[in-house]
Amino acid sequence: MMIIMKKGATDADIGHVVEKLHGVGAEAHISRGEFKTVIGAIGDREVISQLPFDAMPGVEGVVSIMKPYKFVSREFKDEDTIINVGGIKIGEGYFTVMAGPCSVESEEQVLTTARMVKEAGAAILRGGAFKPRTSPYAFQGLGRQGLEILAAAREETGLPIVTEVVDVRDVELVAEYADILQIGARNMQNFLLLTEVGRTDKPVLLKRGFSATIEEALMAAEYIVKAGDSKIILCERGIRTFETYTRNTLDISSVPLIKQLSHLPVIVDPSHASGKRDLIAPLTMAGLAAGADGAIIEVHPNPEEASCDGQQSLAFEQFDSLMGKLKKVAPAFDKSLATGEYNGVR
Amino acid sequence: MMIIMKKGATDADIGHVVEKLHGVGAEAHISRGEFKTVIGAIGDREVISQLPFDAMPGVEGVVSIMKPYKFVSREFKDEDTIINVGGIKIGEGYFTVMAGPCSVESEEQVLTTARMVKEAGAAILRGGAFKPRTSPYAFQGLGRQGLEILAAAREETGLPIVTEVVDVRDVELVAEYADILQIGARNMQNFLLLTEVGRTDKPVLLKRGFSATIEEALMAAEYIVKAGDSKIILCERGIRTFETYTRNTLDISSVPLIKQLSHLPVIVDPSHASGKRDLIAPLTMAGLAAGADGAIIEVHPNPEEASCDGQQSLAFEQFDSLMGKLKKVAPAFDKSLATGEYNGVR
Amino acid sequence: MMIIMKKGATDADIGHVVEKLHGVGAEAHISRGEFKTVIGAIGDREVISQLPFDAMPGVEGVVSIMKPYKFVSREFKDEDTIINVGGIKIGEGYFTVMAGPCSVESEEQVLTTARMVKEAGAAILRGGAFKPRTSPYAFQGLGRQGLEILAAAREETGLPIVTEVVDVRDVELVAEYADILQIGARNMQNFLLLTEVGRTDKPVLLKRGFSATIEEALMAAEYIVKAGDSKIILCERGIRTFETYTRNTLDISSVPLIKQLSHLPVIVDPSHASGKRDLIAPLTMAGLAAGADGAIIEVHPNPEEASCDGQQSLAFEQFDSLMGKLKKVAPAFDKSLATGEYNGVR
Amino acid sequence: MMIIMKKGATDADIGHVVEKLHGVGAEAHISRGEFKTVIGAIGDREVISQLPFDAMPGVEGVVSIMKPYKFVSREFKDEDTIINVGGIKIGEGYFTVMAGPCSVESEEQVLTTARMVKEAGAAILRGGAFKPRTSPYAFQGLGRQGLEILAAAREETGLPIVTEVVDVRDVELVAEYADILQIGARNMQNFLLLTEVGRTDKPVLLKRGFSATIEEALMAAEYIVKAGDSKIILCERGIRTFETYTRNTLDISSVPLIKQLSHLPVIVDPSHASGKRDLIAPLTMAGLAAGADGAIIEVHPNPEEASCDGQQSLAFEQFDSLMGKLKKVAPAFDKSLATGEYNGVR
Repeated sequence: MMIIMKKGATDADIGHVVEKLHGVGAEAHISRGEFKTVIGAIGDREVISQLPFDAMPGVEGVVSIMKPYKFVSREFKDEDTIINVGGIKIGEGYFTVMAGPCSVESEEQVLTTARMVKEAGAAILRGGAFKPRTSPYAFQGLGRQGLEILAAAREETGLPIVTEVVDVRDVELVAEYADILQIGARNMQNFLLLTEVGRTDKPVLLKRGFSATIEEALMAAEYIVKAGDSKIILCERGIRTFETYTRNTLDISSVPLIKQLSHLPVIVDPSHASGKRDLIAPLTMAGLAAGADGAIIEVHPNPEEASCDGQQSLAFEQFDSLMGKLKKVAPAFDKSLATGEYNGVR
Repeated sequence: MMIIMKKGATDADIGHVVEKLHGVGAEAHISRGEFKTVIGAIGDREVISQLPFDAMPGVEGVVSIMKPYKFVSREFKDEDTIINVGGIKIGEGYFTVMAGPCSVESEEQVLTTARMVKEAGAAILRGGAFKPRTSPYAFQGLGRQGLEILAAAREETGLPIVTEVVDVRDVELVAEYADILQIGARNMQNFLLLTEVGRTDKPVLLKRGFSATIEEALMAAEYIVKAGDSKIILCERGIRTFETYTRNTLDISSVPLIKQLSHLPVIVDPSHASGKRDLIAPLTMAGLAAGADGAIIEVHPNPEEASCDGQQSLAFEQFDSLMGKLKKVAPAFDKSLATGEYNGVR
Repeated sequence: MMIIMKKGATDADIGHVVEKLHGVGAEAHISRGEFKTVIGAIGDREVISQLPFDAMPGVEGVVSIMKPYKFVSREFKDEDTIINVGGIKIGEGYFTVMAGPCSVESEEQVLTTARMVKEAGAAILRGGAFKPRTSPYAFQGLGRQGLEILAAAREETGLPIVTEVVDVRDVELVAEYADILQIGARNMQNFLLLTEVGRTDKPVLLKRGFSATIEEALMAAEYIVKAGDSKIILCERGIRTFETYTRNTLDISSVPLIKQLSHLPVIVDPSHASGKRDLIAPLTMAGLAAGADGAIIEVHPNPEEASCDGQQSLAFEQFDSLMGKLKKVAPAFDKSLATGEYNGVR
Repeated sequence: MMIIMKKGATDADIGHVVEKLHGVGAEAHISRGEFKTVIGAIGDREVISQLPFDAMPGVEGVVSIMKPYKFVSREFKDEDTIINVGGIKIGEGYFTVMAGPCSVESEEQVLTTARMVKEAGAAILRGGAFKPRTSPYAFQGLGRQGLEILAAAREETGLPIVTEVVDVRDVELVAEYADILQIGARNMQNFLLLTEVGRTDKPVLLKRGFSATIEEALMAAEYIVKAGDSKIILCERGIRTFETYTRNTLDISSVPLIKQLSHLPVIVDPSHASGKRDLIAPLTMAGLAAGADGAIIEVHPNPEEASCDGQQSLAFEQFDSLMGKLKKVAPAFDKSLATGEYNGVR
């Protein structure tokens, strides 16, 4: 950490900062420029970063040299983390497609969709049983019944399931049914929920908040690891910008960046990023091309009857066509579509 | 709701939308332009808004004519809501200052601060017992012990207390101690927490998320009202923008706008909005001038020893000076500083 | 255009709007809902859109049904526009790579680079002779001498050249030398410059401003067409967001969106979008995968000696490696790299 | 400037950076931490900042310790700059109101408005003769005739005039008529125009671009000073954010911040910031309270007939009421409204 002193900071100001550093067992390395002095703090990062330098007299600002996360960083672990969900892999050269409806609405809807996406080549079934909705007047999900429907679909098709958990009190329940626990974008900084899912042994699909920096997304993953779980899949699902033609702006740069900064796998969510059905195929392709390990895509047997997100759900033939293109293109990027038989080990 | 059809939408497409509207008991009012047709949907707003028009063939987009919130709107209730916290008011021509440390660190720290801010003219004591922190390595608060310290400070000074609740499992506990329950910016769309605090009878201080639109903030308030509680104070605390000199950008326009759109009182949080001690006084003044009903300000006996937010906390003499200016300026805006004796009625 | 009246708007308010519409020869189509009335305005869009409805009593807001641009829209011209620069094409299934240094620094630098990028498969040479710089203390370009150096490189290698024009007074001069006139992001709404370049017969490479919406970018293109020139290549080069790990956020969704909304070709600029050399290859690939017609990439013989943008310039071997990957991957997207002999017809 | 080396940077990498610094006559001050090394560069800032450290092997990033602007900084000149426009002052405890129509439409419109705003207490007349418009189909201004109308209004009322210049070729013409040259938000980084207006001896009203950082706005002012003119008034007119209820977000924090960082006066533009008439009064008040030296406000004799910006223009009685409030409130902030007789010295 570098502490930058104001032009005109006195020796007493500098001495004061140095004293604070010594007080926590850190070393201070003073560098005097023509106009300003910079103090390098050397010692235990977590201890030093708690000192409120900004509040000390004569201090202009503080620059972090080290990243604020550790276990999720590429510096901590160089080789890629590969997630294995009952035999289906995320990472390791696979492009893993998770597909299914926004919300679980009925057994028939989920089973029909599960059979279709399996047939088309998806590796994992998605579906929401608990839905966080901006409006208190919108459909909030089927709850436990939704989880049972998803489990029935897994039973029949052999597709592992990913589903969102929104309430700390439901983590145990959802973990009973799900193969992957999803943390939605609005809960990316719900630190209690991060801690609770981290205490289960399930892989976690962590969506980047729509106004979270990449660094904050990695900090959120760090919370989960710190609670005990290091099987995390990060998901880029668009950030909030001034552009209004799309619901959010898919930050495609985050894909190669996160792969540089971290060893965790990264997937894209083109449905939520764009909010437009027509953009799902090109954005999935862009994700693959930028190095993503997969995509999570909304599919519905009849989008215009969907209880949520109909405008950004693919109909079956559209999903099938997209999967066809992915199979054709993936080898050019040295990837293959994840498939395989679910071996029941959850 | 207006459904705008694409140029080239067929009569069948239009008929299909109309049929869907009739299916939920709504009327369709067709307006054919030279190039495009617009269908006005007339009927029960909540029912109509659930229909996924965007997913129907030939539909270009949908425009909401009605606001998506109801109970919090000025249209629903014209007169201003005034919150009464044991005799201290928010609204009704008062400018109510809530002040205190970011985190409760010790009994001495809180008592010293409470006495000082009371003396300077603050009406309500703030202080965090449960802290949501971006980094898992940062101080997370004293929990129940913190609540007890706050209660002791209220006992001595007669200042009601506002404190944050972050966990649905703690709502009952925090409500036992607090006079006002605070929902932090990161939890503004934690709909479960909104519902739980709405079930208590305590006033709620709801902070706008740093990337929430004004409409979304009002929707969050609607969740609380729908759960049973209509004593809500909205708080503008800055939004995330590209500007980096300040931590966030105080959206000062939101103050008069929310007062137009809603009957709820609005306060500003200049400490979190700016992240800079030097900006707290001018931003508090700007809040007053724009029509805010109060401000929430971080004050610490020794900012450079603070366990959080030291750089944006006022020292005692700075807070005292700000309060002096507020007392001088408020009458020009036909406001007076809220004070009064806490009557113990919580 | 739909004019939405406030709840409580009077018949006189409605009549007033209708009268204004009739006054410009337009028809008014009134649709009364339970709470609000909507007036559809039917007639000459350009005339109607000049009326200040927002300022009329009882008006809540205005919704445009028609897009504000015309000549650049897909609705105006359905088939893709293909730009032909002396035999090199942009559009029509080609992926056209423009490459070269940020600034023209010397004849040797440009010639070396031109030979290299030609060898590696680039189709067009880029290089700045006039540089708009945020700091008045930064290198501002070689001016006319830079143009002469670029022309010499074209002479030798047969690569057409694209270079930026920043001053209305230089348009004629730059057009004498350049094959494509570039409008930089900061000048996207310099309407005078748009008009001047539109008066030449040169193709224009129009960069989207870093805080321009897609609609505004298309409006800027409309200015150029209106001045007489319809040979426009749009370029997505990143927008300004809160994310700080990258210089800008490449809005990859804009590629398929612009191709839906407009007939003009679109390329990506991964160098300026990211500001990071390591991201250029994955972002170029993402652009190709999302449907872009090409990319513009900074290449320098010795990035660490570059007078600008060294951190986002590829060294020769890095560019060569990227071109190799593009050649391998493009066919999977039914594209081929543009090449060909410059036929001297400018 | 601090150069931060990557974890794992070699001694050769460090030596290479040091060598480059020595090459330009600068000193290098090496600080080795446990994981990373930081090199402090000491010497001529403008020379050092041109070195492309980011492109050198082993370099992780660069941190500027010094601000990139000089002449406009508070560090360069401590006392406030006061602008004197023919006897009317901006700065020095005055709150100076500039008012008038968006566009000059006719002599009658301008004269009527000028008389009214003078009567109400405005000190300077605004009005656009050259208009930059997003749409090529919108009204582009009366040009020279507009300037003549403004001059006639000055002749009659004694109000100095501020008007925008958009074309480098018109700077001389506009300077013949105007007392203050306005640079619009879209031209804030039109560096040629900044240089040309800087060559005149007229004060310049420089609007912050709607997506410019405060630092970039100060850099733009630096361009003008460098060209010869130091009589600059900065203007905050809102930045582009995700919020859609307002046209832009008035960054009220920029007012006290710019006054800390620079000696230049700062005013606010509540009309363009909000795009909503109802917000003009509270935002003007907020500007005053935050320390602004004035405001620029759109006023029109009949907003609903305005050829531009009708929805954000005040009618006469609204402007009069606002001026009344300002006169009442200003003394509480130790300010007085600028008035005075224009002495003809331009």
